[in-house]
Amino acid sequence: MTSVLVTGIGELVTNDPQVGDGSALGLVTDAALVVEGGRVAWVGRRVDAPAADARTDLGGRAVVPGFVDSHAHLVFAGDRGPEFAARMAGEPYAAGGIRTTVAATRAATDEQLTAGVARLVAEMRRQGTTTVEIKSGYGLTVLDEARSLAIARGFTEETTFLGAHVVPPEFAEDPAGYVDLVTGPMLAAAAEHARWIDVFCETGAFDVDQARAILAAGREAGLAGRLHASQLGPGPGIELACELGLAAVDHCTFLTDADVAALAASGTVATLLPGVEFSTRSPYPDARALLDAGAVVALASDCNPGSSFTSSLPFCVAVAVREMGMTPAEALWAATRGGARALGRDDVGRLSVGARAHYAVLDAPSYLHLAYRPGVPLVIDTVS
Amino acid sequence: MTSVLVTGIGELVTNDPQVGDGSALGLVTDAALVVEGGRVAWVGRRVDAPAADARTDLGGRAVVPGFVDSHAHLVFAGDRGPEFAARMAGEPYAAGGIRTTVAATRAATDEQLTAGVARLVAEMRRQGTTTVEIKSGYGLTVLDEARSLAIARGFTEETTFLGAHVVPPEFAEDPAGYVDLVTGPMLAAAAEHARWIDVFCETGAFDVDQARAILAAGREAGLAGRLHASQLGPGPGIELACELGLAAVDHCTFLTDADVAALAASGTVATLLPGVEFSTRSPYPDARALLDAGAVVALASDCNPGSSFTSSLPFCVAVAVREMGMTPAEALWAATRGGARALGRDDVGRLSVGARAHYAVLDAPSYLHLAYRPGVPLVIDTVS
Ligand SMILES: [Zn+2]
Ligand SMILES: [Zn+2]
Repeated sequence: MTSVLVTGIGELVTNDPQVGDGSALGLVTDAALVVEGGRVAWVGRRVDAPAADARTDLGGRAVVPGFVDSHAHLVFAGDRGPEFAARMAGEPYAAGGIRTTVAATRAATDEQLTAGVARLVAEMRRQGTTTVEIKSGYGLTVLDEARSLAIARGFTEETTFLGAHVVPPEFAEDPAGYVDLVTGPMLAAAAEHARWIDVFCETGAFDVDQARAILAAGREAGLAGRLHASQLGPGPGIELACELGLAAVDHCTFLTDADVAALAASGTVATLLPGVEFSTRSPYPDARALLDAGAVVALASDCNPGSSFTSSLPFCVAVAVREMGMTPAEALWAATRGGARALGRDDVGRLSVGARAHYAVLDAPSYLHLAYRPGVPLVIDTVS
Repeated sequence: MTSVLVTGIGELVTNDPQVGDGSALGLVTDAALVVEGGRVAWVGRRVDAPAADARTDLGGRAVVPGFVDSHAHLVFAGDRGPEFAARMAGEPYAAGGIRTTVAATRAATDEQLTAGVARLVAEMRRQGTTTVEIKSGYGLTVLDEARSLAIARGFTEETTFLGAHVVPPEFAEDPAGYVDLVTGPMLAAAAEHARWIDVFCETGAFDVDQARAILAAGREAGLAGRLHASQLGPGPGIELACELGLAAVDHCTFLTDADVAALAASGTVATLLPGVEFSTRSPYPDARALLDAGAVVALASDCNPGSSFTSSLPFCVAVAVREMGMTPAEALWAATRGGARALGRDDVGRLSVGARAHYAVLDAPSYLHLAYRPGVPLVIDTVS
């Protein structure tokens, strides 16, 4: 097996507090790493580096773990740019807009959907994302959910069945019947393509009892649970996620004190999605309160055509620092190691021995530039 | 002279209301343009396009005028990432931080300064900027201001002498002596390299009487005036700029009703710099009030290592829409035609007959995506 020594790393973020400066980021300056068989075999100061079969030099640039985007909706068709412009002119965001995308997605061919996912995954990769979760949820028929997940599976192991995204128009008068479909034939068709099951637990989508039933059915079928909750207002979803010990509960825009306490006391990751607040002019979640209470926080893009069409985790990091009281270090950790925790993964989101050698090279001397230089495409190479 | 027909433009922003849909953006769908001798020779619907010597097809993408970044400080050395991180942890922004960069800039070689400008200009270009104004202001000695401008002149015609950026430490006890230096030997050495003269008119920098004297001396030396004003609090700078008929007054973060009225009644462009508010956690300027009153608004990056280290006008457009009440159309116009107006230019910032053929190709079907897809590097080609 060939080993490669990577030198010229001006600053290395390992996300391993056992390495480097002992902080959560495990920072090493004038660093090097050795990659063997796609894994990190050694990491430390350049002066201490072992020999290797080959060598590459990064010219003093900063290296960070590849971003782990634990929440994205990439299987869809259609464009909602005009809806966005109308919202910016004063119309409120409503979950019902999802139905616009459902109609376009059902009408699209497999090839069109696959090309759309490929384009967004490539765009994410150019911005440093090396692991992405992809949800279904714009099909909402047995066939369309199953094909959405089969397509997603071609791009990632982290696929999520989100039949419970919104009640489709044809079940408007019979939401209970739709829940039966989701937990019955749709789940049966989706399960082979999915690792996770998710529910949009929100007024206008699914209530907490429906969420509980859908998550239970998913668990029966071998799918681990995650949840959309408290995006549009406070609700019972966060406490449900903590009670069930889910890997993550996402959005958390409207947090009660009880929610913060429940998250701090649980292993459930609070995944914050600042692209949504940015693109819907919503208030931002109080990341500072979560961090101060001891909760684990992740950042993800929620890339989707309605409420957050960014694919950029560097952008999410910058907004989280500006708007959510996070330090640049906390925001970077949340977008890498936090995202990995939200997916129950220990092999990504860090750059210490044994981890996958997934990393982004920044055209900058320090990870601080991700927040210090907002909007600038700093990632000049993504390795995975 | 060879003519080139550009086809496959799904949406073309001309910024000429005589063209296309008659809006300020002068939108044409299914468009084409003919370029001859670096200028736009014809623009319109593809079906009406004349023949040309060569042809290139853009596959249905949107084309917008190259961004005109009318406010940037690119000649400097040093990194202020740690200062940024401290500010995000609660320390307020103070104009005195400029002195950190002054010390580093004075200590740098011409080659280092030139390389820094080249890097940022290239970074801007990758993000669609085809015209950039570059200020001095981190030298603050006769020699260091003159060399800063000579270096800037290698990259742009739009160079601005900003000896009156801040009073340097060696004149701390004699600010009047520094104004004498700026209006005397420093101006004499700078004038041959500069088109504009600028003053940071703000508490802690230069007061309105000093600003008036410096602008008058500049005019004597053949330099047209522009002004930094009302960044950190309300002040008399905006009214001074309007009274003197300057091309632009920049920042305008803290606007009084009298300021809005003066701008609306004058030909002076209000240049807003949302990167500064983003990176200093300041409140945003009220662009809506300016637009509703009939003032001309431009957007620029203020790219500088202290208060706004973004080089991205797409990012500024997205933030202006989110935070400043601008529509995507108003924000795009402000970052293109508005920037051109702020520099007194009619040959850039539009794509109608006679203008320079400076444009950005977006990997998107519409200019709306600049705000709809925040943080995503959508510019796939910059032509100029
Ligand atoms: Zn979502
Ligand atoms: Zn400035």
